[in-house]
Amino acid sequence: MQDTPKGNRLHIAMFGRRNVGKSSLINALTSQSIALVSAVPGTTADPVYKAMEMLPLGPVMMIDTAGIDDEGTLGTLRVEKTMQVLTKTDLAILVLSAETGVSAYEQTIAAAIRERGIPLVGVLNKMDTAAFNQSKLEEWGKALELSLVPVSAVEHKGLEQVKQQIIKQAPGDWDSMPVIGDLLNPGDTVVLVVPIDLAAPKGRLILPQVQTIRDILDHDAYSLVVKERELKEALGNLRKPPRLVVTDSQEFLKVDADTPPEIMLTSFSILFARHKGDLETLVSGAKAIDRLQPGDRVLIAEACTHHRQADDIGKVKIPRWLRQRIGGELEFNWVSGGEFPADLSSYKLIVHCGSCMLTRREMLYRLSVARQANVPIVNYGVLIAWVHGILPRALLPFPAARSILED
Amino acid sequence: MQDTPKGNRLHIAMFGRRNVGKSSLINALTSQSIALVSAVPGTTADPVYKAMEMLPLGPVMMIDTAGIDDEGTLGTLRVEKTMQVLTKTDLAILVLSAETGVSAYEQTIAAAIRERGIPLVGVLNKMDTAAFNQSKLEEWGKALELSLVPVSAVEHKGLEQVKQQIIKQAPGDWDSMPVIGDLLNPGDTVVLVVPIDLAAPKGRLILPQVQTIRDILDHDAYSLVVKERELKEALGNLRKPPRLVVTDSQEFLKVDADTPPEIMLTSFSILFARHKGDLETLVSGAKAIDRLQPGDRVLIAEACTHHRQADDIGKVKIPRWLRQRIGGELEFNWVSGGEFPADLSSYKLIVHCGSCMLTRREMLYRLSVARQANVPIVNYGVLIAWVHGILPRALLPFPAARSILED
Repeated sequence: MQDTPKGNRLHIAMFGRRNVGKSSLINALTSQSIALVSAVPGTTADPVYKAMEMLPLGPVMMIDTAGIDDEGTLGTLRVEKTMQVLTKTDLAILVLSAETGVSAYEQTIAAAIRERGIPLVGVLNKMDTAAFNQSKLEEWGKALELSLVPVSAVEHKGLEQVKQQIIKQAPGDWDSMPVIGDLLNPGDTVVLVVPIDLAAPKGRLILPQVQTIRDILDHDAYSLVVKERELKEALGNLRKPPRLVVTDSQEFLKVDADTPPEIMLTSFSILFARHKGDLETLVSGAKAIDRLQPGDRVLIAEACTHHRQADDIGKVKIPRWLRQRIGGELEFNWVSGGEFPADLSSYKLIVHCGSCMLTRREMLYRLSVARQANVPIVNYGVLIAWVHGILPRALLPFPAARSILED
Repeated sequence: MQDTPKGNRLHIAMFGRRNVGKSSLINALTSQSIALVSAVPGTTADPVYKAMEMLPLGPVMMIDTAGIDDEGTLGTLRVEKTMQVLTKTDLAILVLSAETGVSAYEQTIAAAIRERGIPLVGVLNKMDTAAFNQSKLEEWGKALELSLVPVSAVEHKGLEQVKQQIIKQAPGDWDSMPVIGDLLNPGDTVVLVVPIDLAAPKGRLILPQVQTIRDILDHDAYSLVVKERELKEALGNLRKPPRLVVTDSQEFLKVDADTPPEIMLTSFSILFARHKGDLETLVSGAKAIDRLQPGDRVLIAEACTHHRQADDIGKVKIPRWLRQRIGGELEFNWVSGGEFPADLSSYKLIVHCGSCMLTRREMLYRLSVARQANVPIVNYGVLIAWVHGILPRALLPFPAARSILED
């Protein structure tokens, strides 16, 4: 995912004085072991841009302003550097330490951020130290007119609440992960396998198929739309092989057989798991299926309250596949529409719908809530690919998710 | 159009005694000069099946039962033949003559048709003879419990009213002309040129494009969906040339240049003019544009009452193109939604919208009303193709419409 175009990444700038724990917080939020900034203060005031993954948000551009924190006052150079950063910032995080609290620096930065209409998330780090208490949290929050999230970067506490604030406050046009376009080069052909069965709406295509065709056009590539029966012939008619074959999950096994191994193959469900959520988080959730024990509780969550068919996927098929997979009974609970249950702690797995009725932001928020409760979460599409054994090949275009699968 | 699959043709069976004018009526309705049946009564009781065009309904299968009319009573063989015809009949026409009126034959046939739930249109022919009068029309209509359309097949009077009855009464599943499928063979490639401009809805395709992709899949062919800029490259990547290129009308000139002359090219608008109406009637309407004189009245009819944009096609663009074409002013009237004006006689041309909000049946009815008033009618898509000079190439896949253009 390191090649996600810069424009698709949420740019998050991290502000705070030295020793409040900015670098530790960045490392903790992104779970990356590489130290981003050494413990020794930098000799330059230049901010550091790092493209990284922040689960479940996906690719972000983290702007570490470690070099432009204060030295008592904001010197001219530091003010300039700060302004320069803010022109590229989608969302700012202001980090305070329980040991040092609010100074003129935080007041000035917060005002500059607000002046530009940039969303601001406040963090009070070092809640693990003796210096922390609840009244300081409230007092400093009041001083900055900002709700501060208590965090311990070193103990990895409060991180999911910070992510939830990021998801909630990120600007409106941010949640636009392309369906497929970031995987393509101009002039690429993508073969889309669209079975026409009884479930296909009369005279139409289903929306994910239409969105995929459109996204391919938007990225100067083109799609060959074909039924599974004509796939082999259609592939043979192309002089240059396609960049990718995308199939409806139902036909994966046939399409797998008809697609030469050197051509990448994935499914619409996998594309939309990524487009509408975070593929890595969902793949981790799929792996958790094999850790389930008979008697475990599983939550099945649907965002809408659709009319259920006789062999409804959420009510019938998924419970059946899971029982077969673990070879025993499970305790299922279902929720639909509105909100997640407040207490997720009794569940061993959450299975979420494809979230076509949710925005990406809403889905990322739900992923984050599940992570906070330490409950693995998977969606219908990734679960189906996993229980049918097609996930390994379907993840080939997504190295980060693939490496989670192989861990 | 003679190769329209039989399943797509409305099967119309024509019943009536000898000499009521069945054959003349068939010839008059279909405007075909070939005599379908000789004046000498046939020596066999077998019905004759004739695939033909009936404007504006399009392809129909006319079943001429000339050989099974009565000889005083319905003999066993004739009853059997009649029942055989009725198993294949979508709609029946019962023809009476003003000279002979209702007999047991008409009563028996009408009952047999109704028993099977087949829609029935009643025609009283020979209104041009002295035998005809209004009270007979009413009396015989009452006897058959059928509203009889007065017609003179030889003088071509009342024909459009018969067609309107056919359109109104044809069974519900009849108005399903394929978008493109009848032009294709299994395994064909169709290249669809879909420009992405400001008018394209965000993240989607417009419905006619989606319907075309679907119809291609339904006919075991496949589509290559491409922007106009990538067309040349995409064509070069195909080993076997496509059966057809279909483009958005806006990009026709560029696509025309990039599509080798041996490959057929048409537009989505032309496909949908045919799918949603009758291409031949609309092409005749387009030709009538060049007969307009300054000062003539033109009716612009839209089926829906959409929010108008600044350069609305119906309000601004089409009037401008027509004025430019004829080099003078025209008098425009606009109607939208509901119905046509009752009196169309003052108009020299009707320009109808693409009728995406109308069923094919509703559009065919409007075409028929215009034909009855003897006012040429064209739709937006065919008009645009005509005034931009792209209609001749765009009609190559449609020989019948093309021959009207060349007349």
